[in-house]
Amino acid sequence: MSESFFRSLMNPKSIAIVGASNNPMKMGTMHALSILKDGFKGKFYPVHPTEKTVLGHPAFKSPLDLPEAPDLAMLVIPSQHLLPVFEAFGKIGTKYAIVITAGFKEAGEEGMKLEEQLKGLAQKYGIRFVGPNCMGIVNRDISLNTSVSPIVGKPGKLGLISQSGTYVAQTIDYLKKRGIRFSKAVSVGNEADINIIDVLEYLGEDDQTSAIAMYIESIRDVNRFLHAARKITPHKPVIAQYIGGSEAGGRAGLSHTGAMAGNDYLYDGLFKQAGIIRVYSVEDLYGIGWTLATQPKIKGNRIGIITNSGGPGSAIADTCDANGCEMPAFSKELQNKIKPLIPTHAPCGNPVDITFALDMKVMTETIPALVMKSGEVDGIVLHGAMSTGFLAAVFPHLSELMPGVTLEDMIKGASKDLTDSVQVPFKNNIPMTVSSFFDRSDQYTKEYEDNDIPVFDSPEKAAYAISALVKYKTICDRKSYQPPIELTPNDTARQLLKQAADNNQSTLDEYAAKRLLASYGIPIPEEILCNNVDDSLEAAQKIGFPVVVKACDPLIMHKTERGLVYLNISDPESVINAYHALQKSAGRPVPVLIGKMIKGRREFLSGITFDEQFGHCVAFGVGGIFAEAMNDVSYRVAPIGDMESEEMINDIYCKKILSEYRGMPAVNVKALASVLSTLSKLPLIHDEIKEIDVNPIVINDAAPFAVDALIVLK
Amino acid sequence: MSESFFRSLMNPKSIAIVGASNNPMKMGTMHALSILKDGFKGKFYPVHPTEKTVLGHPAFKSPLDLPEAPDLAMLVIPSQHLLPVFEAFGKIGTKYAIVITAGFKEAGEEGMKLEEQLKGLAQKYGIRFVGPNCMGIVNRDISLNTSVSPIVGKPGKLGLISQSGTYVAQTIDYLKKRGIRFSKAVSVGNEADINIIDVLEYLGEDDQTSAIAMYIESIRDVNRFLHAARKITPHKPVIAQYIGGSEAGGRAGLSHTGAMAGNDYLYDGLFKQAGIIRVYSVEDLYGIGWTLATQPKIKGNRIGIITNSGGPGSAIADTCDANGCEMPAFSKELQNKIKPLIPTHAPCGNPVDITFALDMKVMTETIPALVMKSGEVDGIVLHGAMSTGFLAAVFPHLSELMPGVTLEDMIKGASKDLTDSVQVPFKNNIPMTVSSFFDRSDQYTKEYEDNDIPVFDSPEKAAYAISALVKYKTICDRKSYQPPIELTPNDTARQLLKQAADNNQSTLDEYAAKRLLASYGIPIPEEILCNNVDDSLEAAQKIGFPVVVKACDPLIMHKTERGLVYLNISDPESVINAYHALQKSAGRPVPVLIGKMIKGRREFLSGITFDEQFGHCVAFGVGGIFAEAMNDVSYRVAPIGDMESEEMINDIYCKKILSEYRGMPAVNVKALASVLSTLSKLPLIHDEIKEIDVNPIVINDAAPFAVDALIVLK
Repeated sequence: MSESFFRSLMNPKSIAIVGASNNPMKMGTMHALSILKDGFKGKFYPVHPTEKTVLGHPAFKSPLDLPEAPDLAMLVIPSQHLLPVFEAFGKIGTKYAIVITAGFKEAGEEGMKLEEQLKGLAQKYGIRFVGPNCMGIVNRDISLNTSVSPIVGKPGKLGLISQSGTYVAQTIDYLKKRGIRFSKAVSVGNEADINIIDVLEYLGEDDQTSAIAMYIESIRDVNRFLHAARKITPHKPVIAQYIGGSEAGGRAGLSHTGAMAGNDYLYDGLFKQAGIIRVYSVEDLYGIGWTLATQPKIKGNRIGIITNSGGPGSAIADTCDANGCEMPAFSKELQNKIKPLIPTHAPCGNPVDITFALDMKVMTETIPALVMKSGEVDGIVLHGAMSTGFLAAVFPHLSELMPGVTLEDMIKGASKDLTDSVQVPFKNNIPMTVSSFFDRSDQYTKEYEDNDIPVFDSPEKAAYAISALVKYKTICDRKSYQPPIELTPNDTARQLLKQAADNNQSTLDEYAAKRLLASYGIPIPEEILCNNVDDSLEAAQKIGFPVVVKACDPLIMHKTERGLVYLNISDPESVINAYHALQKSAGRPVPVLIGKMIKGRREFLSGITFDEQFGHCVAFGVGGIFAEAMNDVSYRVAPIGDMESEEMINDIYCKKILSEYRGMPAVNVKALASVLSTLSKLPLIHDEIKEIDVNPIVINDAAPFAVDALIVLK
Repeated sequence: MSESFFRSLMNPKSIAIVGASNNPMKMGTMHALSILKDGFKGKFYPVHPTEKTVLGHPAFKSPLDLPEAPDLAMLVIPSQHLLPVFEAFGKIGTKYAIVITAGFKEAGEEGMKLEEQLKGLAQKYGIRFVGPNCMGIVNRDISLNTSVSPIVGKPGKLGLISQSGTYVAQTIDYLKKRGIRFSKAVSVGNEADINIIDVLEYLGEDDQTSAIAMYIESIRDVNRFLHAARKITPHKPVIAQYIGGSEAGGRAGLSHTGAMAGNDYLYDGLFKQAGIIRVYSVEDLYGIGWTLATQPKIKGNRIGIITNSGGPGSAIADTCDANGCEMPAFSKELQNKIKPLIPTHAPCGNPVDITFALDMKVMTETIPALVMKSGEVDGIVLHGAMSTGFLAAVFPHLSELMPGVTLEDMIKGASKDLTDSVQVPFKNNIPMTVSSFFDRSDQYTKEYEDNDIPVFDSPEKAAYAISALVKYKTICDRKSYQPPIELTPNDTARQLLKQAADNNQSTLDEYAAKRLLASYGIPIPEEILCNNVDDSLEAAQKIGFPVVVKACDPLIMHKTERGLVYLNISDPESVINAYHALQKSAGRPVPVLIGKMIKGRREFLSGITFDEQFGHCVAFGVGGIFAEAMNDVSYRVAPIGDMESEEMINDIYCKKILSEYRGMPAVNVKALASVLSTLSKLPLIHDEIKEIDVNPIVINDAAPFAVDALIVLK
């Protein structure tokens, strides 16, 4: 499996670097310094045309001069000089490389050619490589850091995969100041060879990685991505930020890593299908990723709030509420245990607001432990733990009153052993997030962060982070994925498609399209195609009133707007009138479809779309004439099984109308799901089908009927 | 006007404080230290029962011993001892006070009594006061800070009003580290006397305040708030975070400042009506507030992006796009000017991505100035300006290569004169926001912040901030507010209401309700109330088929679900059948309403709701049977004029259906707006009316008809 080769790349015993020198301000040197200084214990071979030593290590003129084939070659030289050096590594037998150099696919036509040549060489010599146009890798298992920025602190449990080098390199200081630490981080650059899916598969199996964060601008192989993610997400949380859905964002991404941006709504559906939690900012990518990586699994959605101030307490409650959490009022029993610990009249019903009480041990240890042990909550958000940060903030005012006392003295005096406080969530196996307006200059913030409890700089963020744990629980609670049952092509469908092809039609007309759907068990109204008024009358009488009278011709679209549909025809005379009216509106003789009038006020739509990047996708949403205005549609990558169909059906905003609703029975969601999953398989078994549009699907009592359909051919 | 008294409170020449001592860890002392240390030049009188001096100032045993009546009294003593001291100030003639002390309305029944007594004393002695249960005030004009935390840096242009003391006191360090500075800040606490509206009016007229940020848990006088805000927002931006819409958030708020939380959707409507920009986190309250306070007014929505990295550039573009901004592709002319400044192949079409170029002067001065002067953008978001922060981050790796060079040396060497860079937006009168992963340890971040250019710690936030300027432009572009034209009560309506009252009805029946609406010009279908089948037949023939046949009785609700409505009746026989069927379904003889069948596929709803806090509000949304599932409804405080009606109509998500839509003409929005504004005035001129529900309003061609209506009486 693909995972093992990437594990080898991440665990070299020897590294050669080309492009490092003794000039500390060169990129190559910075990359080399990270390897040398951050604890990598393997061999290090600088390659340099003129220098005798580089950073204190003997340098070699060419890869060909190296004493052995290094496990990993790292190239940080201008793109125009890169290929021969890369080839030299191939010749000596190096199997893994990182190409930092930019100026490839992202830089226009010439660069694209260069990238093709690079790929050719890699194939020729069996080299697997990361890049080009990337920032390298971080593997804390072996203290390997090939980025330009020092890594600080102990290893963490978050794995990062990024299509932007910035989020591996430029944010090192940002992360340090928030106590967020990686297990592994990979900047994949242009993905000429190794791509985010390779890394995802690797991190999915990596024991040191408890959660995976992905920065995505484009997914090149959607099906493989989905396959890989589906295997990982039930046991390890994956979150993703997708960028590029806007026109300008796409323009930026395209020129940046040569990625092709896709449609935002398709990514949205893909992530849901894959069990990936989507976030919308790099701050959440890190912060929520870190929370998922560090906190115990949450067992429910009941959140307890502990605060020293009402405003943040309310803000936490509002944010939790808006994100699927409950804040149960605490039992009298629990309240009675908390009351003696806090000032009289201070609220303790959840939120617990210790108000002006300053006993931080009570706030950070006694009360959280009590609440956790009560069994009344599944997670805690805490605001207001502070000590030295507050002292430092007020010191300028206090200092005069305490002659001879320095800030350092005060901080030292105020510093406490917080071992018990930072153990509370892990001892009780209940997750906790913290909100503080003080950064790591406060002992609480620092100790929480260094002990794997995420601290956010505002109450809303700490609340949002705990809600992400609840989202992940929902993902874990999904029915396990079953590949869709295969559909066998039938002759009716084959013939309908052949006939259309023989007629050079670009679409199947409504009658043919619906017969095709019906041949696979999708319910349609009883209907008869007629070519004259007598047949129409007879058909209506056979079907039974009321009926629908429609023009039926593959060249006619937008029938309703053009006056080519008559609904609810309830007597023979009206059939005759409708028939003639249709012919007149069409302006030429057209066949007429007489169909059973399906009554039902709930209308949905479903369809199969085709996207260059995503292939066939299935859509489901609110249908009828207001579909466009409401735009309440969910998407999934085709094909889908019944479980995924049901999920996407329940994904619409207006899902209330699926239940019993104003005197109507609940929709038969199983039947509807079966329509979607059948539709999603049709393009797979009939190559001729490009797109399908079924709108409306009318719900009659509880049962769905495909009342109009269009099938677009390739 | 109310503004002047609060200006006096904010500008005392002398302050007495009760509750300060020489113990630096007491709250009262901290408040006093802030007054003494942050530059207040007026007189300072500590009142203390035993100490001879407090913080180096002679202390007085009682307010009665003071040499003069201080302009402002500040009380930080336990609530049970507060009243006599407060009264003593009243006796000596002090007219303004700040009551920091908690333990009032927020602390249950006893506290509520105490608060009433406090208010009584204030009234008796003519004292206006802030609090109780607050953190005090900040007025940078006179260097007055009565909070517990030191204020640092020069004054800023943001005014803050907060119903949580935390956001004035606990966040001082947070704000310092983000370079955000207040002009004035007021923690209003329980608002026993002075409330957020008093402060809002004051800040609205304050020259030193360019934008106002409000943290709101409850608005006690909605109409006065609206009146005050309407006057301010066209010339000074106001933003607000409202918290308390959730049940637990409300629970927290209630016990916290004794505020009564209202319904979130009503606040949402109120803010829109008032021209207030709503934000959803305290981070945005500060960050967006600061952006609005510092940046030049934006003239359009065209944003230019300058970055040194593709990922952040794409993220900025996506966020801008999602928030109403455009990122126009730059003209060839502009691109040709930028190209020579950045590496070959680096994108310059917007985003400009300088990629690996490290010339910060080019990035922060030359290119922004070029782009601003081009006339092609209205605002700029810049990511990647960095110098000393980056050096400090990589120093641990570099130091060995530069023996004898300390980090301080490096930073000194790298520090530059950034005067020109930080002037760019102001010289060109084009707003700019900055994104940087480096905090104030980087010279760029620090200098930008200190020169009133907001720096955000992620690209998404900088983009969102610039979009807030565009939102404010939309507010400035609103038609100026005109008070709604008054409606004169008419006799028809009076009689209908009297008749219902005489019958002890709790509602008007449909027929009466619609006649009342029609008497004020709201279009309704032609209809006749009938008591027998012959009258019904005659009515149907008079009105003309098709007709609607409905049961009409004030006691009957949910007619559709109960089978008491027959639509689209097209012949006499069907009228007879419907009449008898209705009587049967009702189970007793009921009057029958024969009405013209109004055809139209677009259905809306409107209504007047009553809320304890907001009074009467008007609702507008998508109607018909799916209204509940869609919940696409906007609200405004009643009464509204036509301009506000049109705004709320266009506020719905599905507004596409208001335009020409799938063969239907555009809705006559003026006529619809007139329906809403008329409805909104009815409860004002008819005291008996509590609520009105008009659903559906059917659009026939372009014209609205109130097809069903209910009027609930008090």
